[in-house]
Amino acid sequence: MKRSSKAHWNGDLSTGHGELTTDSLVLNKTGYSFNTRFADGVGTNPEELLAASHAGCFTMALAYALSQAGLKVNDLDTTAVVIVDMSKSSITDIELTLDAAPIDSLSEEAFLHYAIGAKQSCLLSKALTGVVISLHVNYMGLHQHIDGNAKSVDHVS
Amino acid sequence: MKRSSKAHWNGDLSTGHGELTTDSLVLNKTGYSFNTRFADGVGTNPEELLAASHAGCFTMALAYALSQAGLKVNDLDTTAVVIVDMSKSSITDIELTLDAAPIDSLSEEAFLHYAIGAKQSCLLSKALTGVVISLHVNYMGLHQHIDGNAKSVDHVS
Repeated sequence: MKRSSKAHWNGDLSTGHGELTTDSLVLNKTGYSFNTRFADGVGTNPEELLAASHAGCFTMALAYALSQAGLKVNDLDTTAVVIVDMSKSSITDIELTLDAAPIDSLSEEAFLHYAIGAKQSCLLSKALTGVVISLHVNYMGLHQHIDGNAKSVDHVS
Repeated sequence: MKRSSKAHWNGDLSTGHGELTTDSLVLNKTGYSFNTRFADGVGTNPEELLAASHAGCFTMALAYALSQAGLKVNDLDTTAVVIVDMSKSSITDIELTLDAAPIDSLSEEAFLHYAIGAKQSCLLSKALTGVVISLHVNYMGLHQHIDGNAKSVDHVS
């Protein structure tokens, strides 16, 4: 499967401007610039698009795992925060926070297992190996933070 | 710097649906689903958003490098193609193709140097270490393909 998008840019970094267009045209010559990326300009930027991509991928992966297990999937809400360390010119961390509505007969422990699995199996997580990805899960009485460096479910306390 | 986005999902994989919202509201409850991701449904998907993010990041990084060198940046156009190997459930490759308008007094060889540098220094490239990233550069008479496994400018033939 192939999915593509285009970027156009003209001018230098601070005064130039760019446009982003996706195959679907959900983005269609959508403006981005130094100000929309690093200051408070109105428009999009690569980091929020990465956050949307990761949040969307993770949430769909979790819905897949739950439905494969025969469970009814209720509301799943994920926020992805992309953190840039400007001194390193690097995206250092992505923090996923998941809020999930109760699912019949699914315990907190079992839900956590599925959430961690989705974090690990999601296509974006597997591509973003240069980034520390953490996960915070809110499900019924559970409020569990999974450190980005934990490599398996076994590390969960 | 932090940038964030949200995903909402309800229902199983094939019949459920999701919504993506970015901080900028460029995406604002924008629909995505199994069909928009893996079939021909109308809407966005995580992979094209990743492609837009990477194309945008790379193109801005190149504009930065050229303008830092005192050069006037004319039109830069990049297409990013995200390739998913469904049998591996992985994003295996991202192919960047750059078309650039001529820049006064900048040779093909010198331009190629800047383009390769931008591919390497771009925040998205550094985050996506689980993916092979290739680059094809079209600049004046130059049509150069940089294999995704080449690690430095020295590898360019």
